[in-house]
Amino acid sequence: MNVAVIGLGLIGGSLLRALAAGGHRVTGFDADVATRSRAAGAGFTVADTIGTAVAGADLVALAVPLPVLGEVLVELTGFDGLITDVASVKGPVLELARKHSLPRYVGGHPMAGKETSGFAASEPGLFDGCAWVLCLEPQTALDDWLTLAALVTAMGARVVPATATEHDRAVAEVSHMSHLFAAVLAASITDSPLAATLAAGSFRDGTRVAATRAELILAMVEGNRVEVGNALDRVIEELAAVRDRLESGDLIDYLRRTGDARRAWPPAAGKPHEIPAGVAELLALGRDGGWVTAVAENRASVVAIRPETAA
Amino acid sequence: MNVAVIGLGLIGGSLLRALAAGGHRVTGFDADVATRSRAAGAGFTVADTIGTAVAGADLVALAVPLPVLGEVLVELTGFDGLITDVASVKGPVLELARKHSLPRYVGGHPMAGKETSGFAASEPGLFDGCAWVLCLEPQTALDDWLTLAALVTAMGARVVPATATEHDRAVAEVSHMSHLFAAVLAASITDSPLAATLAAGSFRDGTRVAATRAELILAMVEGNRVEVGNALDRVIEELAAVRDRLESGDLIDYLRRTGDARRAWPPAAGKPHEIPAGVAELLALGRDGGWVTAVAENRASVVAIRPETAA
Repeated sequence: MNVAVIGLGLIGGSLLRALAAGGHRVTGFDADVATRSRAAGAGFTVADTIGTAVAGADLVALAVPLPVLGEVLVELTGFDGLITDVASVKGPVLELARKHSLPRYVGGHPMAGKETSGFAASEPGLFDGCAWVLCLEPQTALDDWLTLAALVTAMGARVVPATATEHDRAVAEVSHMSHLFAAVLAASITDSPLAATLAAGSFRDGTRVAATRAELILAMVEGNRVEVGNALDRVIEELAAVRDRLESGDLIDYLRRTGDARRAWPPAAGKPHEIPAGVAELLALGRDGGWVTAVAENRASVVAIRPETAA
Repeated sequence: MNVAVIGLGLIGGSLLRALAAGGHRVTGFDADVATRSRAAGAGFTVADTIGTAVAGADLVALAVPLPVLGEVLVELTGFDGLITDVASVKGPVLELARKHSLPRYVGGHPMAGKETSGFAASEPGLFDGCAWVLCLEPQTALDDWLTLAALVTAMGARVVPATATEHDRAVAEVSHMSHLFAAVLAASITDSPLAATLAAGSFRDGTRVAATRAELILAMVEGNRVEVGNALDRVIEELAAVRDRLESGDLIDYLRRTGDARRAWPPAAGKPHEIPAGVAELLALGRDGGWVTAVAENRASVVAIRPETAA
């Protein structure tokens, strides 16, 4: 396949390396000249403009930060190939793709990362074993989705099918709430040195991600503003219910249920099995917590794995 | 000193061992016959009744679970020596002591623990370096408090002075909220296998203590019901404020402040210095996040350490 990767940071750079290692013809572009030189110096084909990079490409992978994604999409007006991205929020990018009339857009979110960033930190094995959400919407061409799924599973990633809304809701609940809870817990020591002295292991773990750079947490939660707002409403309601249960002596069942959920996480992977490559089947797989590990050559089926706990 | 230790589990057993190692005359008692035999077999003086154990004691240390503390206090009616306890909540025990007219009660909470429990797990070094709250109330006899502080610092613990209310409020905020937040976060995967599949490091750490046995979490938060209720009100209000800040684009300062607080924790210990052994000075030390490491022989001063960040 002929692929253009726009944005050569940790994710884009690793994508460039992994695709090249997989035998694809890849062209990279980055707005930063030094990054372009570094990628060219590493032996990759690098273009000087987005237009040159995407000319003749079957697929454009956008690995630029969310705030500049809109500008880059303007430059893709008229491009009729497949487009994907790697932003950590999917609803707003889907909106942008609609606004710029890019019908062959399939949103993606590789859940890979490490402490370091930039092209220098990129590596071809970054996606091996990681969960990579590929969005399936009513208007998504299934064939485009399967093309991407084949490409991504070949890099060793587990492809999780989900709508943009399902993705944004799930990460708001398990990732963005974790960060905001950590901030609220950390706030409890800002005006009480006594509390800081009495804080122990549960505080240490519960607040760990509060030490993440404020700009990064902000980008996450602002990018996913709608679902983060909904998740905040839900946890506020749930904390009020916890308070009511505490007062009515009715808390033990809740603590047992949530304890069981945590002890069963992460779930063990079940046996690989074939399922039909249909939109309904794929979305059901994602909702069961499952993922795709391979796409059949005839595109009629995929190899799927469900967690052992799911039905 | 002549000390009776009632309850010979992990904390009581360790206290028996540490006091004996410190040259005190110690008598132990436990309601469980097998535990009494085990302690006697380990070479300790063990009584068959609470009455025999406390006869002639200068100090009685109660290391029984909170739910049975009331019954034990009934058996101490008429005892005119010093009484302390090790329960993880201090307001309710203070109430009990008042109800049973025990004027020489000084509440304590050694913040030590390990994965295992029971006399078999006890060890004389358990309290070395741990924070041990000793409660100072308006009606506390300062001399009794200093007697206990000398005893506890000799075991290597850092004595943190605080009122029962200050203690209960602080642990509600840094420990009990950590446990309830973990439960609420864990609840988000109970009805979404997709969320469980997308959950990563922030979820793992933020929910770790949700796997604690439900009965233990319940005992903590029910024992501290009033302050846990207040802390829940506060965090609900704060999460609502976070939602407002997110909507008005005003969240970054909050994230910077909480991030700074987390990065500065735990604070480095400052230099030891002497302070007068007065109620006001000791409570001010505790509010500054400081602790006592030794009591002067003449009882006029104590050696204090404040965190480096405190004034």
